[in-house]
Amino acid sequence: MALIQGYAAHAAGAELLPFKYDPGELNPYDVEVRVTHCGVCRSDASLIDNDWGTSQYPLVPGHEIVGTVSALGSAVHGLSIGERVGIGWQANSCGRCEWCRQGKENLCATAQPTCVHRHGGFAEALRVNARFAIRLPDALNSETSAPLMCAGITVYTPIRQMGINPSSRVGIIGIGGLGHLAIQFARVFGAEVTAFSTSAAKEQEALELGAHHFVNSRESKSVNGLAGSFDLIISTINADLDWAAFVNTLRPHGTLCFVGAPAKPISLPAFPLISVARSVCGSNTGSPAGIAEMLDVAARHGVKAHIEKFKMSDANQAVNRLRKSQIRYRAVLSA
Amino acid sequence: MALIQGYAAHAAGAELLPFKYDPGELNPYDVEVRVTHCGVCRSDASLIDNDWGTSQYPLVPGHEIVGTVSALGSAVHGLSIGERVGIGWQANSCGRCEWCRQGKENLCATAQPTCVHRHGGFAEALRVNARFAIRLPDALNSETSAPLMCAGITVYTPIRQMGINPSSRVGIIGIGGLGHLAIQFARVFGAEVTAFSTSAAKEQEALELGAHHFVNSRESKSVNGLAGSFDLIISTINADLDWAAFVNTLRPHGTLCFVGAPAKPISLPAFPLISVARSVCGSNTGSPAGIAEMLDVAARHGVKAHIEKFKMSDANQAVNRLRKSQIRYRAVLSA
Repeated sequence: MALIQGYAAHAAGAELLPFKYDPGELNPYDVEVRVTHCGVCRSDASLIDNDWGTSQYPLVPGHEIVGTVSALGSAVHGLSIGERVGIGWQANSCGRCEWCRQGKENLCATAQPTCVHRHGGFAEALRVNARFAIRLPDALNSETSAPLMCAGITVYTPIRQMGINPSSRVGIIGIGGLGHLAIQFARVFGAEVTAFSTSAAKEQEALELGAHHFVNSRESKSVNGLAGSFDLIISTINADLDWAAFVNTLRPHGTLCFVGAPAKPISLPAFPLISVARSVCGSNTGSPAGIAEMLDVAARHGVKAHIEKFKMSDANQAVNRLRKSQIRYRAVLSA
Repeated sequence: MALIQGYAAHAAGAELLPFKYDPGELNPYDVEVRVTHCGVCRSDASLIDNDWGTSQYPLVPGHEIVGTVSALGSAVHGLSIGERVGIGWQANSCGRCEWCRQGKENLCATAQPTCVHRHGGFAEALRVNARFAIRLPDALNSETSAPLMCAGITVYTPIRQMGINPSSRVGIIGIGGLGHLAIQFARVFGAEVTAFSTSAAKEQEALELGAHHFVNSRESKSVNGLAGSFDLIISTINADLDWAAFVNTLRPHGTLCFVGAPAKPISLPAFPLISVARSVCGSNTGSPAGIAEMLDVAARHGVKAHIEKFKMSDANQAVNRLRKSQIRYRAVLSA
């Protein structure tokens, strides 16, 4: 088996360096995928920096992958050499627990991320369990669809699971890689969409992406004026806001869903939750079934990431712009 | 119209004193109900004390009422003089908003509580909008069913709405007026039930009520040992616990539901919510439709409050024992 050429961090926070690894014999249930495009997610920076204490070095980041199947494990069926597939955050799961049996592999306690104990998509190729290589509809463009594999499914899941529909009012906090896709998906489900951002410069773009309203998320007066407005708010940010104020903007039975993790604990008085049966929840990426559905919806309704293009060899440049929050709205590396 | 004799607090925190009031002309949509039994809820003490700043004096508490219809407003249909009905926290709602139209009157923004701007059930009679006087199934005993009208529906609602079933694992925090009914309802829905209490003395009774397990809610080691265990935890207490530890005891898609409001804000790190899609929510009593259903379930499955009986004229004694957390498990006043 030939060596795989990629870009790896060799220590927490290190620059990515060219790196070759021997993938060994192909596992019977795995496929090898030649990477054509790979999005750069904030989680890649967190993995490089070992923010969660789970990273192993050398670490090849990259989990918003589009590529073509180049090798099939002996037990794989339903995929063919040359097919175009997408790969997201998850590369494997136990396959036997209740969640795997239900097709909710993202909730498996032994779920394997694509870039931990494995090497990811900042490379010419990678391997994952075949269940996690999802065929892309022909109508989707590879480079604007790569970010759907993590950013897209992460925001699609709560919109879909909360039953968002044309009567719903949805707020999106943070208009970046995740948020700019959340606006589009919420519109596809027919909702009235409000974009919350601290960056006034994003107002025009948020409206062009499909938001009906734009609100500065740090302007207490504006946020407080929206009491009782939303069925669902998705927070995509890692920063701390006045979450109690955002809970008050929920309607009865409304939900504030975190897909980004603020640094500090979320502090919530109980009474505004109890008084009109509001919820606060988290959501993590999505299942292979959910990804396949999301890709179909994206193809049918023209949802696509707005991207900045980089060559794979310029991965460090892309990561550095991401760290400075300069990307509008997703960096995508191409082979 | 005759004066109604009741017991009222005339100032925040005051002792209840005999009190007569003129109910005026009967509103066309109201019924008058002669009270035979009235439970004493912690919220009655909060109303007497004006804990929420909404109390008006003189204030007649009492919102876990069973009695018989004694007068019908001119527009009321579907109820007859002499019928036995129950009345809970709510006495009226707008009848026209989306929540009222959906039969979720407890979420109406202008919902009228039974004991605010109206006089409650610590009295020989009271009046409510006829929609909020719910017929009791014949199989139910009046005195052990009065507490179902607030405590019962408050814990029934999340059990029912979260889809608890014989595959579910449910935790109940606080084994008091609400908690002892929550154990019974969770068992009726077929769940495996764990009772959490700080009072070791309640272990035997919790098991007799139907709990499978008993855990001291302040023993960190025991709580931490239950990571990933529960589909639903209902917290009935007003005290502060290590809520982050309880979130960790939830399974994927599990929910921690507050029906009691802790004094301090709930502090939650986002990551344990995100990692396996957990939720934290609140729930407030229930709708008339929900109460009617809950009463049917209680009748069919023998759910009843364990009560201490008091005469209506001993209401102060009941309230004082409640304030000292001495009641096992609900005080009920009888006419």
